[in-house]
Amino acid sequence: MTMNLLAISPLTDDDIKTLKTYDVTVITPDKLTTENYHNIDISFGWDADTINNILATPNHQLKWIQAYSAGVDYMPLDVLKEQNIILTNASGQRAVPIAQSVLSYIFYFARGLNKYHSQTSWDPFINQFVLQSLPVVIFGTGQIGQQIAKYLQAFDTPVYGVNTSGHPVNNFDKVYAINDLSHLPDDIAIVVDTLPSTDQTNNFFNQNTLDLFNKLFLFINIGRGATVNESDLIEKLNDGSIKHAALDVTKVEPIPDDSKLWQTNNLLLTQHSTWAGDSEKLFTIFMKNLPSFIAGEPLTVNVVNYKTGY
Amino acid sequence: MTMNLLAISPLTDDDIKTLKTYDVTVITPDKLTTENYHNIDISFGWDADTINNILATPNHQLKWIQAYSAGVDYMPLDVLKEQNIILTNASGQRAVPIAQSVLSYIFYFARGLNKYHSQTSWDPFINQFVLQSLPVVIFGTGQIGQQIAKYLQAFDTPVYGVNTSGHPVNNFDKVYAINDLSHLPDDIAIVVDTLPSTDQTNNFFNQNTLDLFNKLFLFINIGRGATVNESDLIEKLNDGSIKHAALDVTKVEPIPDDSKLWQTNNLLLTQHSTWAGDSEKLFTIFMKNLPSFIAGEPLTVNVVNYKTGY
Repeated sequence: MTMNLLAISPLTDDDIKTLKTYDVTVITPDKLTTENYHNIDISFGWDADTINNILATPNHQLKWIQAYSAGVDYMPLDVLKEQNIILTNASGQRAVPIAQSVLSYIFYFARGLNKYHSQTSWDPFINQFVLQSLPVVIFGTGQIGQQIAKYLQAFDTPVYGVNTSGHPVNNFDKVYAINDLSHLPDDIAIVVDTLPSTDQTNNFFNQNTLDLFNKLFLFINIGRGATVNESDLIEKLNDGSIKHAALDVTKVEPIPDDSKLWQTNNLLLTQHSTWAGDSEKLFTIFMKNLPSFIAGEPLTVNVVNYKTGY
Repeated sequence: MTMNLLAISPLTDDDIKTLKTYDVTVITPDKLTTENYHNIDISFGWDADTINNILATPNHQLKWIQAYSAGVDYMPLDVLKEQNIILTNASGQRAVPIAQSVLSYIFYFARGLNKYHSQTSWDPFINQFVLQSLPVVIFGTGQIGQQIAKYLQAFDTPVYGVNTSGHPVNNFDKVYAINDLSHLPDDIAIVVDTLPSTDQTNNFFNQNTLDLFNKLFLFINIGRGATVNESDLIEKLNDGSIKHAALDVTKVEPIPDDSKLWQTNNLLLTQHSTWAGDSEKLFTIFMKNLPSFIAGEPLTVNVVNYKTGY
């Protein structure tokens, strides 16, 4: 059965060709007439006026909206819910660039680039490591944590995860519950913080939590600045119980010129930039669901839960 | 049929357990008596006196020697050949740390760490790239080149290879012959030089070769210093037609204090250190061949060709 897709977000010629193989016809906003309102099945992207017009059309057949964003709080979720429209978001689009920045930090310190970049005479630094010998624990096992874990698997790195309940997640060798950290392996070399900011995670990484790790090689935060007690971290970098740290996010951004962070040795600051770089195409996310949609099966990727709103 | 292995190079208890499952009995040098000389099937490692004693024993049954080194020029190859002994070397043991250093260079520049490491005030540098958008060509498709290509595949990077004949090699999207470079894709962003030093490769990367690449993002040499004309490279870094370079090897090592290399912008020097870090265990290499050996089939990994001597 032919379906009609309204391309509010742009599609390439190749995307349109791909859709044709699924018997999906693309209608661009400039070709959209009021006559079309009733026969649009899918909206690729969001425009409030257009979608409201469609939703107000009697016997319209809109069944699925692919949002262009991760958050969808700007949409009339109650109306969409009432009309039984499936809504999928663009969550995870930035997982690839962020995870690649995490790999860049690990390689930077593991392969000695932190020493080499500033040397101006011959002094080989051979205290280097391969990733296999630096076990990693990732706090947060969402899309970003999973992407980091997947990359690390390519280097045979032992990868552990921490989440609320300790439920197993793809790409992790083992996952622990956040209130049961005493069972973590005792050879963890790298901690990656991908935690969101909540009441529970505020200053989660303080002296006590960091004390759980014995001679940490590297502490990384690409989650939220609020989750780290920065004074405790600086103290541990200074006394050598944590050898290196890389922070993309900090409590105060921009970091003030007189912040101690700029002056701390073995600390790399990347100024909330890890999101930068080509992200996953919205169309790629969309295509993960299209075959299910056409088969009349439930969608499985990035489906918004109208109860929680995300 | 039980086989006897002489463990001249050390084996762990786990290694010995693994060998037992193959019905291979391990004899350590301290347990070796002249009575054993005739019933050793495999030598794991090399010791000139011991092996010569075995080879001089009538009706000895030594059939396979696993060398602990990549080069085997210190062995009596003619004798081994005459006695039809299979010799395997330890080539590729260093492929993992070297390939991980190559990844470290790529991430360093792609994710902007070359800017961030020295900043002391807020100035986000968001001109960053994911590896998928930086196609790589690797000159040399041996074990090190293959290991680099394998890692890059994990990041969906387009990876091309260059070797003598252009024959296809695992992990490369496509391989080109070194005398046919005009057919290389025109969007190459990164060149990795893993070439050995030969008459043909001496100064191979000079102005003419580098001109084949249009606005190169990164040039890497982890092969041999002799393969690069350093003045030509420096000129291209200075005029911006090559944006960045990372050299582990240079024509003169150690690099003299007054070398221009130390003063060139956008050039990272790692002082012939990429080999550092845990390498692949000799036992891991050995185990790649053991099942074939036991089945009486030809060995396929790291078998020394007595004609070429490697």
